[in-house]
Amino acid sequence: MKIVALAGGVGGAKLLSGLVLVIPPGDLTAIINIGDDFEWLGLYVCPDLDTVLYTLAGIANPETGWGIAGDTFHALERLKDLGLHTWFKLGDRDLATHVYRTHFLSLGCSLSQVTRSLCELNGIASRVLPTTDMQVPTRVQTDEGVLDFQDYFVRRKCAPCVRGFVFENVEQAKPAPGVLEAIASADAVVICPSNPLISIGPILAVPGIRAALRACTAPVLAVTPIIAGQAVKGPTAEMFAQLKMEVSAWAVAGLYQDILDVFVLDEADRDLAGRISSLGVEAITAPTLMDSLESKAALAGLVVRKLEQWIHKD
Amino acid sequence: MKIVALAGGVGGAKLLSGLVLVIPPGDLTAIINIGDDFEWLGLYVCPDLDTVLYTLAGIANPETGWGIAGDTFHALERLKDLGLHTWFKLGDRDLATHVYRTHFLSLGCSLSQVTRSLCELNGIASRVLPTTDMQVPTRVQTDEGVLDFQDYFVRRKCAPCVRGFVFENVEQAKPAPGVLEAIASADAVVICPSNPLISIGPILAVPGIRAALRACTAPVLAVTPIIAGQAVKGPTAEMFAQLKMEVSAWAVAGLYQDILDVFVLDEADRDLAGRISSLGVEAITAPTLMDSLESKAALAGLVVRKLEQWIHKD
Repeated sequence: MKIVALAGGVGGAKLLSGLVLVIPPGDLTAIINIGDDFEWLGLYVCPDLDTVLYTLAGIANPETGWGIAGDTFHALERLKDLGLHTWFKLGDRDLATHVYRTHFLSLGCSLSQVTRSLCELNGIASRVLPTTDMQVPTRVQTDEGVLDFQDYFVRRKCAPCVRGFVFENVEQAKPAPGVLEAIASADAVVICPSNPLISIGPILAVPGIRAALRACTAPVLAVTPIIAGQAVKGPTAEMFAQLKMEVSAWAVAGLYQDILDVFVLDEADRDLAGRISSLGVEAITAPTLMDSLESKAALAGLVVRKLEQWIHKD
Repeated sequence: MKIVALAGGVGGAKLLSGLVLVIPPGDLTAIINIGDDFEWLGLYVCPDLDTVLYTLAGIANPETGWGIAGDTFHALERLKDLGLHTWFKLGDRDLATHVYRTHFLSLGCSLSQVTRSLCELNGIASRVLPTTDMQVPTRVQTDEGVLDFQDYFVRRKCAPCVRGFVFENVEQAKPAPGVLEAIASADAVVICPSNPLISIGPILAVPGIRAALRACTAPVLAVTPIIAGQAVKGPTAEMFAQLKMEVSAWAVAGLYQDILDVFVLDEADRDLAGRISSLGVEAITAPTLMDSLESKAALAGLVVRKLEQWIHKD
C-alpha cells in the first residue's frame, strides 16, 4: 500500500517513524511543511524537513524530537560569544546539514533535489518531498504586529496572541516535483498529527494540493493533534483558543472536512465521534499519544489497517 | 614604539604572540597574508587571518598552531558522512568564525571590517589588517599543472614539485584601508619568520606595499624562517630547493634585499652573516626557534631592542 503522508515537524515525524515500522519504508512518500524555513547567518534552515530526515534516519534526538542525538553546540556557543543571536538551537552535526543544503542551493539545485540527496546519504528509503521548491515563509499576525515564524515560535516562545497567518507568496507557489503525482497515485493519504494551522495549513495552501486531495480516489485519514483539549506538544491549543476556535479534535476535523474520509481521535475524546461523523467523516478512536516506539508502531498499525479496510470495503 | 609586522600563519603568529608580550599590544599592527583564502562549501575561510586572530586571542590550539584549542570536529565528520571532501580540517568552534565572516561579507562588509569586528569580539588590542580587501588567490604552478593553493598545500600535502606561484588579480589589488598608512607611520617594521614565497610574497606583491616599505624611514627587520637549511614548519625548504634556490637564510635575505635593514638569522647559521652583510643588510644572530612562550618572548625582546638601537643610533 503506497501511502502519502502530510507532516510538519516533531508530531508528524513521530507517526512517520511508526509508519515505516509497519509498511515497507519505500512505500511511504512524506510531503513536508516548508513554511518554517528561514535563513540564519546565511545558512538555509528547514526545521521540519530536518526533523523528518533525522527521525527517518534514526538519528533524531529522542528528548527534543528535533536535532541530532548527542549533538554538541560548540559552534553556536562561539557565535554567541561573537555577539550573534543564537535563540535557534543549531547543533554542530545539525549545522553540517545546513552548510550542505545552503551550498547546493547556491549552486542552483532545488530544495527537492537537495532533500533527495540528503535522504540517500542518510540511508532513508522513504521519499521525502518539500511541499514546494519555492519560498513561502509563514508570517504570524499577532497583537504585537506581524512576526516572522521563527521569531514568533522560537525567540518569543509563542507569547504574542495570534490573530492569523500569512503564507507569503503562496499564490505563486507550485507543488514540488512529484507531490501531485504522489497524491494522484497514492493508495491512501495520511494527515499526521501536526499543527493544522502552521504545519498542515501551509501544505494545503499551495495551489493544487488541496484540490488534488479532494479529487483523489484514495482514502484520506487524519490523526488528531489535540487530545482532551490539549496539544501533545507546541502551541496548537493556545492558537486555536486565540483564534476563537473550539480547542478540540472536532475543530481539527472541520479544517479538513472537504478532503477527509476518516478521522482518528483519541479515546479520551470518544464523545466527539458523533459530531465528527456529522461532518461526513468517519470517526474512529485510538490511543493517539505516541510516547514510545511501541505506541508509534501501534498507532501506525491501526491507521494502516483502517486504510486497508476502507480500500477493500467495496 | 609602533611596530608593523607582516605575517602569514603559524610561524608569523608565533612571533606576533611574542611581540605582544614585550610591547603594548595596541602598538602592534599586523598585516596578514590573504593569498591562502578560499571558499569551502560556501563559507569564506581565511586560514592565516584566523591563525593570527586565535593566537592573539590566546585561544589557538598549541599543538597544531592553527584552529581553536580543544575544538571538536562534529560538523566536519557529518559533512564527511554526507560525502563531501573534508581534507581541510575545520573545527566546530572554528566554523563559527567562517559562518560569521561569510554572513557579514555577504551583507556587504569588507574583509577588513569583518576582521576588525572579530578582533574586537575576541578582545584583541592589536590591529590586524588583511593585506587587501580584494581576492588575490595564490595558485601554485607545479609539475602536475596549476593547483589552487589549499589543493596543493592541504589536500596534496605539498607533494607536487613547485615551478612558481601566481597571485591571481594581484595587479588590480589595492592595499586594505590602513595598510599603507600603518607602514608610513611605523617606528619599525618586522617581517615575521613566515614562508617568503607564499606568505610574505603575496603581501609584497600587492601594488604599493613593497614601495611603501622601500620608502619608509622606519627600520625593516626580518627574522629567518630557515634554520640550518631547514624550515621549522611547512614546505619552505622544499619549495626553495624545487625552485633551484639556495635553501638558506641568505636566500631569504636576498628576497627582501631592497626593503631590508636588519636580518635576524639563527645562531646555527652565523657563518652566513658575512654573505648577508654583503647584501647591504645588517645581520645579527639569535636563537630563532620559538618552541615555548619564553623563547617567543625572548626573540621578540631581542628584535625590539635591536630596532630601538637602530632608531636611536643617529
